[in-house]
Amino acid sequence: MRIEVVTIGDELLLGFTIDTNAAHLARALAAEGIEVARRTTCGDTAASIADAVGDALERTGAVITTGGLGPTSDDLTKPSIAALFGREMVLDEEHLAWMKERWRTRFQRELPASNRQQAMLPRGAHKLVNQHGSAPGIWLEDEQGRWVAMLPGVPREMRGMLADTLLPLLRERLGGEGWPVRSLTIRTTGIGESHIADLVTAIPDGLGDVELAYLPNADGTDLRVTVRGAPRPIADARLALAAVRLRSVVGSHAYGEDATDLAAVVLDLCRAQGLTVAVAESCTGGLLGARLTDIPGSSDVVRGGVIAYHDDIKRSVLGVPADVLREHGAVSEPVVRAMAAGVRILTGSDAALAITGIAGPGGGSEAKPVGTVWIALDFQGEVESRRFMMIGDRAEIRHRSAQAAMEMLRRRLQR
Amino acid sequence: MRIEVVTIGDELLLGFTIDTNAAHLARALAAEGIEVARRTTCGDTAASIADAVGDALERTGAVITTGGLGPTSDDLTKPSIAALFGREMVLDEEHLAWMKERWRTRFQRELPASNRQQAMLPRGAHKLVNQHGSAPGIWLEDEQGRWVAMLPGVPREMRGMLADTLLPLLRERLGGEGWPVRSLTIRTTGIGESHIADLVTAIPDGLGDVELAYLPNADGTDLRVTVRGAPRPIADARLALAAVRLRSVVGSHAYGEDATDLAAVVLDLCRAQGLTVAVAESCTGGLLGARLTDIPGSSDVVRGGVIAYHDDIKRSVLGVPADVLREHGAVSEPVVRAMAAGVRILTGSDAALAITGIAGPGGGSEAKPVGTVWIALDFQGEVESRRFMMIGDRAEIRHRSAQAAMEMLRRRLQR
Repeated sequence: MRIEVVTIGDELLLGFTIDTNAAHLARALAAEGIEVARRTTCGDTAASIADAVGDALERTGAVITTGGLGPTSDDLTKPSIAALFGREMVLDEEHLAWMKERWRTRFQRELPASNRQQAMLPRGAHKLVNQHGSAPGIWLEDEQGRWVAMLPGVPREMRGMLADTLLPLLRERLGGEGWPVRSLTIRTTGIGESHIADLVTAIPDGLGDVELAYLPNADGTDLRVTVRGAPRPIADARLALAAVRLRSVVGSHAYGEDATDLAAVVLDLCRAQGLTVAVAESCTGGLLGARLTDIPGSSDVVRGGVIAYHDDIKRSVLGVPADVLREHGAVSEPVVRAMAAGVRILTGSDAALAITGIAGPGGGSEAKPVGTVWIALDFQGEVESRRFMMIGDRAEIRHRSAQAAMEMLRRRLQR
Repeated sequence: MRIEVVTIGDELLLGFTIDTNAAHLARALAAEGIEVARRTTCGDTAASIADAVGDALERTGAVITTGGLGPTSDDLTKPSIAALFGREMVLDEEHLAWMKERWRTRFQRELPASNRQQAMLPRGAHKLVNQHGSAPGIWLEDEQGRWVAMLPGVPREMRGMLADTLLPLLRERLGGEGWPVRSLTIRTTGIGESHIADLVTAIPDGLGDVELAYLPNADGTDLRVTVRGAPRPIADARLALAAVRLRSVVGSHAYGEDATDLAAVVLDLCRAQGLTVAVAESCTGGLLGARLTDIPGSSDVVRGGVIAYHDDIKRSVLGVPADVLREHGAVSEPVVRAMAAGVRILTGSDAALAITGIAGPGGGSEAKPVGTVWIALDFQGEVESRRFMMIGDRAEIRHRSAQAAMEMLRRRLQR
């Protein structure tokens, strides 16, 4: 089954909103063996919706849209697509009653007038249940079996409806047919795309019959291998072989597969060894702590830490000696080591990571340009430290710093 | 000038990467008065690139692509589009020499063999200088004036090349013509989309001749007004009028315009009043600190704080009494108030924000379900606190909590 996705909304087309729905949809569909042949983003006007959905229908006869089902006046998806199918809009009394009830019980208010149009549906359409909001999704199909499934644009509602209602419906339509697109990603850090590419070229027997994509990002370089057009067991065997060969060349730079977060890897290693962790953050200002605690269940490993943004806090809370700060400056090896040792003792943790650096855009000097970051690990009293020169803007430098700190701990735990 | 954007890459189409380039491009082009009529995302194969770019060319004759210019084997943008224009690929000696030199001086290495193909260009193409990487952008134009501009997919390189090279070139082509799409966003928090919609409906004279979009997100609800097809001064006057009317109905829920981050608003208010800030974070684990310090120049306001993830830290570092923790639990009003007071004194700050809550997915109970969050502000010794019931998943609950904490401080500072 090949389908197209049309994401609707001026906010997407004008770039005010980043299209996260499209990525989520694509991943979910690929996992079912449904190929997204093309994705289109169009504006909110009736004409642009009808054009984009019409073109997509002509190519594949199967289209999923997101957006434009809300209560507000810019939501024209339903009538535009109804017109494409030559259907009129009719009031769905059942849905209107459900919405009135929902507002009464849930918000203790009358249904706002602006929400009434959410109960208007193209004649002959089927509703897709929305347990996460008030706009129903819509399934519209013509006599030739060409269909459009319309999902809401709010990510939480879209994801819920996709999982609860649309995927089961598509699965049924597929009837076990279709070869899923199978893929596997190896996540690496501390090694560049070109360097990996040269190593891959040198693999004696190559990677076998797979596609390889290099995906550089602020976490490192991800390597994705994909197999299409093969039954699942064969595809998976090919992926496994390619993964073994890739891992053999990237070695310890690989820290996980697929969407694995380095934070989760580090937490699992700590948990297995019964270790607790603390952080002391200057230029990252809490980002490392936020990364670690973003993982559910982090509370049995992460004790906490100190955001030592101002030098006073480095001194008074973490116990970095004033003369060390004065002599070497806040972005220096002795300071970062003292920060790590200080927070480990303060929090009574087994391991502590400390970061101090210049994230920019200001604050750089010739000796310590923007991107200079010192990271230290105090592991049960043994301190190691390293200087990094991070590339990118302020956000990237901060992100790369948190990532490099976690990587330092991972390497220590796997030694 | 109407153009189309084609973003190329299996990683985008399969949803492994979220398409941030498309949004950045759209915003930059709209600001120049260039309308993105449609955006398409296609896979890495030569056929899908040629199909998508060919369709887009047919509709507008003006296309910008991103992606597929890297050194690796999945990068087929150049030859596919060259074929569309009936051009062969030729080696650009000048660029090859430049790359060799760059690798020698910058990486102290020979140019990897895999990078050589970056010097192959379609015959008759113009290079777009890349000061941020090794793949040049490409401008290809035929005798009828139809053109494709190819930019790299790495966001930092794409943004740099767009600003340095492509926008000046497009500006010159426009020759002062074209009415820019003008828009303005009012950011609100603490009020829902439907509620605002009802208030807007009740504005006596309406909003004038503008388009209004409601953009709910984890920060709150953004209201974007847009004017197209009018000269800049007229468009701006219409936007200003609409903004005044919108602000009159949403009142103090509005905290800023356009991409304004609530963190920046709070920092500016603190700076103006000469106040310093600290944070004490439990369930957000550093996210509030990270949000505040993400803003350049935050160091004159933010002193730092404590990530009190484990209750031991709440007690030992922040001084929350053990019996209060025992009696009320970590997610409670007395604890959050003690956290705020504790971190303010510890860090010697004027104001301190504290957050403790249940971000889920585990840890909830009937009395304190997932999403229960207590937030406190200690403002020069006066403490206020409030309980929130946040909706969404773990990431949203944490994000909304940090946002609500900053909002509490903003309201205090504007009182």
